[in-house]
Amino acid sequence: MKIIVDAMGGDFAPLAPVKGALLAHERYGTEIILTGRTEDILRSVRECGREELPAGVEIVNAEQVVEICDDPSTAFKQKKDSSLTVGLNLLRDGQADGFVCAGSTGALLAGATLVVKRIRGLRRAALSPTIPTATGKAVLIDCGANAECTVEYLLQFAYLGSYYAEKVLGVERPRVGLLNIGAEESKGDELRRETYRKLKEAGAAGHLNFVGNVEAKEAMMGACDVIVSDGYSGNIMLKSIEGTGKLMAKELKAVLMKSAGTKLAALLLKSALTGFKKMLDPNEVGGTALLGISRPVVKAHGSSNEVAFCNAIRQAAEVAQSGIIADIEANIDKMRISRED
Amino acid sequence: MKIIVDAMGGDFAPLAPVKGALLAHERYGTEIILTGRTEDILRSVRECGREELPAGVEIVNAEQVVEICDDPSTAFKQKKDSSLTVGLNLLRDGQADGFVCAGSTGALLAGATLVVKRIRGLRRAALSPTIPTATGKAVLIDCGANAECTVEYLLQFAYLGSYYAEKVLGVERPRVGLLNIGAEESKGDELRRETYRKLKEAGAAGHLNFVGNVEAKEAMMGACDVIVSDGYSGNIMLKSIEGTGKLMAKELKAVLMKSAGTKLAALLLKSALTGFKKMLDPNEVGGTALLGISRPVVKAHGSSNEVAFCNAIRQAAEVAQSGIIADIEANIDKMRISRED
Repeated sequence: MKIIVDAMGGDFAPLAPVKGALLAHERYGTEIILTGRTEDILRSVRECGREELPAGVEIVNAEQVVEICDDPSTAFKQKKDSSLTVGLNLLRDGQADGFVCAGSTGALLAGATLVVKRIRGLRRAALSPTIPTATGKAVLIDCGANAECTVEYLLQFAYLGSYYAEKVLGVERPRVGLLNIGAEESKGDELRRETYRKLKEAGAAGHLNFVGNVEAKEAMMGACDVIVSDGYSGNIMLKSIEGTGKLMAKELKAVLMKSAGTKLAALLLKSALTGFKKMLDPNEVGGTALLGISRPVVKAHGSSNEVAFCNAIRQAAEVAQSGIIADIEANIDKMRISRED
Repeated sequence: MKIIVDAMGGDFAPLAPVKGALLAHERYGTEIILTGRTEDILRSVRECGREELPAGVEIVNAEQVVEICDDPSTAFKQKKDSSLTVGLNLLRDGQADGFVCAGSTGALLAGATLVVKRIRGLRRAALSPTIPTATGKAVLIDCGANAECTVEYLLQFAYLGSYYAEKVLGVERPRVGLLNIGAEESKGDELRRETYRKLKEAGAAGHLNFVGNVEAKEAMMGACDVIVSDGYSGNIMLKSIEGTGKLMAKELKAVLMKSAGTKLAALLLKSALTGFKKMLDPNEVGGTALLGISRPVVKAHGSSNEVAFCNAIRQAAEVAQSGIIADIEANIDKMRISRED
């Protein structure tokens, strides 16, 4: 298993991606290609206390870096010698099994779509993070790649999410829910009502385990394993969860600092609270799978530390091992709505 | 100040609305009209330890009750002698200054729109709860009344929310943000981009304090006082906040029960945690204003207890006192997009 890591992407590049890559190599034996400026990468390697790269970790040089100010839709083309574009070219050419990048989401999405290409027959690729729920976790698809969606996009997201939950997360017969503002078939806008009908058909045919509309609150309580959404609403959901988590963590901290008694309580809770804090920590969750691309691509959080990179690399390897892409290719006919062709 | 309370609406009716009404009467001197079955209401009054109603609290009898199984869009018409319809008729006829109801949101929305009517010139009424933020609170408008919106609806919601934040919540020059999936003007779907342009114009003309697009996370961190959204996405945001709050409260409880040490910590934190728990408790937040109706209407949460009813009654009185409806009427011309007329 060999994973390409964009060593120049993310808030703490190149140190965090390099550290994360070395960690993944050490822990899981994953082979790594780091793309980026060779001397910058080697400096980071030395900062990790190593004289040289271990066998199985190599550098492919790229002089340019895609910046936040670059136009996301054309950056991969304008900067042909960037760590992003060089990495995507290697992936397309079969030099590795997956790609991890913590740089601009828009540039990665455009680059992956146009360089590596989507799986034939899929209309759009989708960002598919897992979110914590009361019973474990759920895949939220899409959460920002496609602000405007058609019924066919959403139908395809349902399949992509279901395969991901089953093959990568190991959920049997994943329960697929349509994110909506009420449980009844008639709820939501025209897009939701028509998608509901298509998902119901797919459920009746035994292609998906469709459990109906789910409200955001019920989804978080564990009502389904796959939450199907357009990218606009999915992003609102994801960011609301993050915002509430941040707000509550802040309030809890204030509570714990209130008095001598609460400070003592904070000491008593120190280790027990670790898991609580981890629950909404993006570094722990790993990266966001970019589903629908013909090879595994994982978007790591911009603020990823080395643990986050290590998790994202493991995740890319799991996607590659799962065979999900071959499964989607083999079942693509179920995911088409002919009259929209 | 006289407020009508639907005594038959909500999970704990008639006891909770009756108790809440008596509490509001006692605390704030608010005069109350309770609508519903006289004998049921009087039984609840006796359960509160009173022989009869105090002066200033009266009953207007209504034999029917709108149930959850009734069609929301026609319930107020089908059940003319319901506590909902009788209450709305009293409000329309000027018998009181506001109306509080914890029954079906859809039935209240349809009834208020068709019996009491919208403010002339407004396209739609909107559900406008306040949500907690890191710096206080913000009005989220709309959060479920209108799943499908036009640019004009959103422009009008911006004004409604701004007047509400200023006149009822007491915020000076409320910062109005458009809920979106990124800060740039080009973000989101066509509806968002066109609404952005209209809000920017309104800001430039000095009619609104428009601060641009806001992401859900930044909104929760206190980036604005009014969050403008279509009802579908706003509902996703509200329910995601509620779900995350519930999930984190559950996890925290598990943390506090983990061992003898954490149980001791829980004891030490008992009073300090009260405020933390209240933050996301719908009973504390009060009701959701139904903005755009020509008289004050407040939707109380279905699970409202007496404190929640008392808060919702105070809120309806505050809306009535604020003069917000007259302000909106006087400024309606700014809120129209002529070519959509």
